[in-house]
Amino acid sequence: MDKSIIRAKTLVEALPYIQMFNNKIIVIKYGGSAMIDAELKMSVIKDISLMKLVGIKPVVVHGGGKKISEMLVKIGKEPKFIQGLRVTDDETMEIAEMVLSGNVNKEIVQLFEKQGIKSVGISGKDGRSIIAKKKLLDGLDIGWVGEIDTIQTELITALIENDFIPVIAPIACDENNNTYNINADYVAGAIAAKLGAEKLIYLTDVEGVLRDVKDKTSLISKIKVDEIQRYKDDKIIQGGMIPKVDCCAESIKNGVAGVHILDGRVEHSILLELFTNSGIGTMLMP
Amino acid sequence: MDKSIIRAKTLVEALPYIQMFNNKIIVIKYGGSAMIDAELKMSVIKDISLMKLVGIKPVVVHGGGKKISEMLVKIGKEPKFIQGLRVTDDETMEIAEMVLSGNVNKEIVQLFEKQGIKSVGISGKDGRSIIAKKKLLDGLDIGWVGEIDTIQTELITALIENDFIPVIAPIACDENNNTYNINADYVAGAIAAKLGAEKLIYLTDVEGVLRDVKDKTSLISKIKVDEIQRYKDDKIIQGGMIPKVDCCAESIKNGVAGVHILDGRVEHSILLELFTNSGIGTMLMP
Amino acid sequence: MDKSIIRAKTLVEALPYIQMFNNKIIVIKYGGSAMIDAELKMSVIKDISLMKLVGIKPVVVHGGGKKISEMLVKIGKEPKFIQGLRVTDDETMEIAEMVLSGNVNKEIVQLFEKQGIKSVGISGKDGRSIIAKKKLLDGLDIGWVGEIDTIQTELITALIENDFIPVIAPIACDENNNTYNINADYVAGAIAAKLGAEKLIYLTDVEGVLRDVKDKTSLISKIKVDEIQRYKDDKIIQGGMIPKVDCCAESIKNGVAGVHILDGRVEHSILLELFTNSGIGTMLMP
Amino acid sequence: MDKSIIRAKTLVEALPYIQMFNNKIIVIKYGGSAMIDAELKMSVIKDISLMKLVGIKPVVVHGGGKKISEMLVKIGKEPKFIQGLRVTDDETMEIAEMVLSGNVNKEIVQLFEKQGIKSVGISGKDGRSIIAKKKLLDGLDIGWVGEIDTIQTELITALIENDFIPVIAPIACDENNNTYNINADYVAGAIAAKLGAEKLIYLTDVEGVLRDVKDKTSLISKIKVDEIQRYKDDKIIQGGMIPKVDCCAESIKNGVAGVHILDGRVEHSILLELFTNSGIGTMLMP
Amino acid sequence: MDKSIIRAKTLVEALPYIQMFNNKIIVIKYGGSAMIDAELKMSVIKDISLMKLVGIKPVVVHGGGKKISEMLVKIGKEPKFIQGLRVTDDETMEIAEMVLSGNVNKEIVQLFEKQGIKSVGISGKDGRSIIAKKKLLDGLDIGWVGEIDTIQTELITALIENDFIPVIAPIACDENNNTYNINADYVAGAIAAKLGAEKLIYLTDVEGVLRDVKDKTSLISKIKVDEIQRYKDDKIIQGGMIPKVDCCAESIKNGVAGVHILDGRVEHSILLELFTNSGIGTMLMP
Amino acid sequence: MDKSIIRAKTLVEALPYIQMFNNKIIVIKYGGSAMIDAELKMSVIKDISLMKLVGIKPVVVHGGGKKISEMLVKIGKEPKFIQGLRVTDDETMEIAEMVLSGNVNKEIVQLFEKQGIKSVGISGKDGRSIIAKKKLLDGLDIGWVGEIDTIQTELITALIENDFIPVIAPIACDENNNTYNINADYVAGAIAAKLGAEKLIYLTDVEGVLRDVKDKTSLISKIKVDEIQRYKDDKIIQGGMIPKVDCCAESIKNGVAGVHILDGRVEHSILLELFTNSGIGTMLMP
Repeated sequence: MDKSIIRAKTLVEALPYIQMFNNKIIVIKYGGSAMIDAELKMSVIKDISLMKLVGIKPVVVHGGGKKISEMLVKIGKEPKFIQGLRVTDDETMEIAEMVLSGNVNKEIVQLFEKQGIKSVGISGKDGRSIIAKKKLLDGLDIGWVGEIDTIQTELITALIENDFIPVIAPIACDENNNTYNINADYVAGAIAAKLGAEKLIYLTDVEGVLRDVKDKTSLISKIKVDEIQRYKDDKIIQGGMIPKVDCCAESIKNGVAGVHILDGRVEHSILLELFTNSGIGTMLMP
Repeated sequence: MDKSIIRAKTLVEALPYIQMFNNKIIVIKYGGSAMIDAELKMSVIKDISLMKLVGIKPVVVHGGGKKISEMLVKIGKEPKFIQGLRVTDDETMEIAEMVLSGNVNKEIVQLFEKQGIKSVGISGKDGRSIIAKKKLLDGLDIGWVGEIDTIQTELITALIENDFIPVIAPIACDENNNTYNINADYVAGAIAAKLGAEKLIYLTDVEGVLRDVKDKTSLISKIKVDEIQRYKDDKIIQGGMIPKVDCCAESIKNGVAGVHILDGRVEHSILLELFTNSGIGTMLMP
Repeated sequence: MDKSIIRAKTLVEALPYIQMFNNKIIVIKYGGSAMIDAELKMSVIKDISLMKLVGIKPVVVHGGGKKISEMLVKIGKEPKFIQGLRVTDDETMEIAEMVLSGNVNKEIVQLFEKQGIKSVGISGKDGRSIIAKKKLLDGLDIGWVGEIDTIQTELITALIENDFIPVIAPIACDENNNTYNINADYVAGAIAAKLGAEKLIYLTDVEGVLRDVKDKTSLISKIKVDEIQRYKDDKIIQGGMIPKVDCCAESIKNGVAGVHILDGRVEHSILLELFTNSGIGTMLMP
Repeated sequence: MDKSIIRAKTLVEALPYIQMFNNKIIVIKYGGSAMIDAELKMSVIKDISLMKLVGIKPVVVHGGGKKISEMLVKIGKEPKFIQGLRVTDDETMEIAEMVLSGNVNKEIVQLFEKQGIKSVGISGKDGRSIIAKKKLLDGLDIGWVGEIDTIQTELITALIENDFIPVIAPIACDENNNTYNINADYVAGAIAAKLGAEKLIYLTDVEGVLRDVKDKTSLISKIKVDEIQRYKDDKIIQGGMIPKVDCCAESIKNGVAGVHILDGRVEHSILLELFTNSGIGTMLMP
Repeated sequence: MDKSIIRAKTLVEALPYIQMFNNKIIVIKYGGSAMIDAELKMSVIKDISLMKLVGIKPVVVHGGGKKISEMLVKIGKEPKFIQGLRVTDDETMEIAEMVLSGNVNKEIVQLFEKQGIKSVGISGKDGRSIIAKKKLLDGLDIGWVGEIDTIQTELITALIENDFIPVIAPIACDENNNTYNINADYVAGAIAAKLGAEKLIYLTDVEGVLRDVKDKTSLISKIKVDEIQRYKDDKIIQGGMIPKVDCCAESIKNGVAGVHILDGRVEHSILLELFTNSGIGTMLMP
Repeated sequence: MDKSIIRAKTLVEALPYIQMFNNKIIVIKYGGSAMIDAELKMSVIKDISLMKLVGIKPVVVHGGGKKISEMLVKIGKEPKFIQGLRVTDDETMEIAEMVLSGNVNKEIVQLFEKQGIKSVGISGKDGRSIIAKKKLLDGLDIGWVGEIDTIQTELITALIENDFIPVIAPIACDENNNTYNINADYVAGAIAAKLGAEKLIYLTDVEGVLRDVKDKTSLISKIKVDEIQRYKDDKIIQGGMIPKVDCCAESIKNGVAGVHILDGRVEHSILLELFTNSGIGTMLMP
């Protein structure tokens, strides 16, 4: 019984947090380990399900690079990367789309539906939600790697209003009917900005921004957009973290109230960040 | 951190319960100690606030007999009762209405608003929500004690649809402009039935129905409507519990899916009953 | 028969007036003798009922000072005033709220409902409609006498749209959960302004603004806001009329098209003013 | 001033009548002297305008036989009748339609609009509101005289919902594109029935049903449908009154709550009948 | 079969045109030969019916001068014109209204209804859609010839939203209850501008604007508004074409995207212009 | 020009057909050659685009067996069939879903979007639109081959109402989170029935039902449901046509007004069947 009362108290303690985000759109970039480990997967799905039930409007954007590479290997094709970007010829693009739109995307939907939560899996092609253009790598054409030209939220908004969680694969087309693979981080950022989301959450495989990359206790909890440059100068934000932080900064400039870089390897990291005082990642804010 | 994860897990464990009651109307009869003790008061208000935020539509019906008696004493009038019913002359009726509609009712509203939860305090007079007629006590006229003639839910429904919690004082009038004081238990039951509520919750000062009234561990968790007579025959349901149980049975016959008799002296008793497996009271069901 | 034809003609003559106010909000400050004399009471209720039926949207704000004093006396407490403002300690505030929200307010509702007109009695606490702050009297704290900080019309508007007449008691709370008694004239003015009311009508116990206060035939029918100062200089507007006129002027500056000071002691004074050419009070206008 | 108070009282006395018909559809067959005498015309228009403003939904059906005959004479054609029905060749039909739809109909609209009341003039052709078929006179073809085959209320309802008074000319077409002139009494009856009107009012040039046709004081105020036969047997309902009463009876059988035969030569006869106790005509009822 | 495939291809070729005008308002001024020749009449009605069915919102404005003159002759009155404007005394006005509102207007409605297309015939009097004032001819009063003072689109918009084609006769009244006959070209232009129509189409009895009025192959397909003056200077736009072109220019200045002067003597001229590449008339554009 | 007029006439001739299907739901099972040949593909997309633009509500269900087999071969796995049903182990199921939901489905969407037609690609998993259960082949388990248990049209209806064409891949899950491949013919039939579709169209690689399978001119244009048995007895309906016809019959029994078996190898076969008199396939009807 005492345990039950503690439970009830816990629920009640979540009250102000629930209130704060009521009716707000929160975009979650779902990727990394949290998309592979079965237990973490369920933990993320449950966190987002709870968000939905307490009146938040979640939108999920997912990646799936690892699965694409596995499938390429299966058909006897070696994945190739230049500066971290996948070299994407026609066949690779076809496989990438099948894996993202036809496998990863639908699996997430299926997990939500299993929880009794209504969701719909789409890609940027559906409702022409994302129009892309070719992205060059320092002038080099590496195939069907795209960058975002335009976001059209008509379909996403219709799904939200009809009470579905939109689950979005980062695939888009251009005016000439070409298909592109786009970095899911950018897609999440652009959609959050266009929807006027309250928050954008990146599930990553790092703790957040660390003052000393070797010291996991050196997490920086809050960074203001105008402090970013100083952190870069001090080499605190460096390497792979730079594009992610830039993408966060961009979203904030476009009106998202806060962007969270969370450690997706921690169970219930989203709830911990949103619904308790124990913020566990790094929050970027205006 | 570990404590935080336990919190997050607790929230997630509430998922199926939240889902079960999503968008459902739950009527709470608020009375007894839970309306007097300051801490219990806040616990009830927070429980109902949480219900509201997670998508449930609560309706509150309250009593206030103790406060009425205090006020009567204040104006130098001794409260009189016959068989538990208050003898209600004109002056008593005027005081009763002022206390219920003007004091108790507005205090509850104020507590909700303090939590940031929109609510509106009404009595059965507003929108002609309750039409009453005189209740005789074995043929004896004991004044302005009423019983329910008709419930009109137009106002209550409008308030719910406009996202307010209706807080209802058990005062009503008749076609001849007389004012009546009505037993709040009956009001809660009749409104729950008319609204097609999913659940009706009675906050009382007992543990529920006890198999042995002296043994608090002998709580009966579930009673089917057609078992009531047997429990009465066995003197398990007896005394003051009889009218309450009859009132519950009536609501269930009119379509309420479940009626809970809870111990309002236990903190967060509503959440314990609805959102955890540790049912703490007695549930009557069809 | 001839009498009937005169009746029909009278109805038809009201046509242009009815048209003029169709669908418009008119706020009525209900107070003074018209709230005490039984016949006048019915006359006001019927006037407002007719307004409602011919497509006007009335909102009623009421006072009740006399009843408060009576109740205070009943509990053996002498009412105290400084410069016309009631000294309001905790007990006085409790009594004031009970009388206004639990007695006067509900009686008005009951009278409307008796006429078959849907109405709802609320105070400034319901839906957090009025947020107040303490009003000092030249720096002196005289207790829970409040002035208006904010008006929130969400609930009032919802009631109007659902076809109820809102009846409002001038009680409010602040962010710290304190309860205040506010001058009903100010409440009526502030609500009229916030709702963008077409008209604001004060039922008073004077004829209106008289050029010569001893000569009841010296009524001034229309005063433009920018003439007020001159009338004050000429001592035509003086004494208790000054705050009332200032309050009217404030409402007009905030967008109310016309404010009427009517003699509530005259039967059907509202209809006389609105629906016939015989304006009977003083109208302030931009 | 006293006169004004009497006026106000008169308005208030209309309260229960206004309430009774609030939001109800009332169909008025407008014809006879009330359509010719300029003063009576204004009296009818004002009565209906008032009905509209106090929340009733009037629908006007008009005739215009006299004007048709005048126009026929103007083009040198003698109007011909058999048993009261106009012999309607092609040319007559063309003139009849022009007069009804292009003259009488638009004049009524213009009078309403002059009063500031929104109205729209249509014929049975618009929105295919009336489908007709040829009416034979004891097997005799007398031209384009039609009887009603089907009423389609889609357009009429849309106009009512958009706050216009529909003004309907009794012209219709059939599936083969022929145009028919239909008796306006039948049109009014059929439309009232199809719309589920509360009342149907016939403005005629008689006092109503008289017990003794020579004694104007022998008016029968109320006739139940099942008494009609007896009145016919007693020769109290006879001659031209028979088809009118049959038409009333038909409407009542189809759900109209009351049908009034009024003397349109009396000023404000509609208001007298609806809004005062001095019923002036004969009411047929179930 | 081959013929059928050609048909199917034809339908498919119309796709981009249909798309272009989807949900757009197109105002058609219907007049000239296309209103007299039976076959052309059906061709116009079918073109507009098709427009309606493929998602365009057509509004029809019609003239009818020839029919008015015929009717005047019929009653023995000779039609009189000064500078092309009809001298309109009271009797002429009455006949003109009957012919336009009661004959031409209803015939068009009937033809649409025959096609299964919902339509409603109104004049500028209905819903006070057109308010007119007297038009003087160089200071000369030639009777009830009006010019447009105000357009009120409330009724027209309500009809469009309820899925009816509004068919409008160019008759209007003023504030003093006078009736006026207005040039239908001006009515079409003013209504198109007020409705924010995408296109305005004039069905005329000429090919369009010809570079050489004697050479039918010298049609000018497109004229920009700022080229008009030059065409006037060059005497290419001259005579009766000047007011029409000025009226088009006016509409374009008021926001209509394109105005087409089409030859109504060519079968299906509207479809040819809108749905194929073979533009057949002159289009004026910004 | 003459050619243009013929085009205009062709459009006008489609009028009654367009009218007939206005606002109706038509389900198209898209498969066979029409999904492979590039030109036929565009012809189908354009036909459906035109349907959408003229007010029909198309829903597309597609197959893709050939592409699945190709992909299986690519990963070195030989497709296996028993009695025409694909033996579907885990790996095959994963590939099938990727091909159907991630490739074929999105390609169709992309083609619509290229035409400027809004569409959304979903599978039966999205919005839990299709719940499946395992289908046994005469008691034999051949893997993840499913049959339909339940259709939930909430998502499909929301997409239609938001003006998107739903494009549906025949993939579904069950309560235990398993994924199934379902015959697209059955999916189309079940969805048409549940949506209350007006028509269901099967694009196949045969001419329809032939009286003599070797004589392509022996096409049977119309078959009533109760004639099917006779045709089976006469061996006219035989072999692979039997399940298809049974599926059609089932849809008709469930309320679809007509089911068409069309030859998808004929260009614009859908338009030919729906919008011209040259029905080209076999129509089954009640």
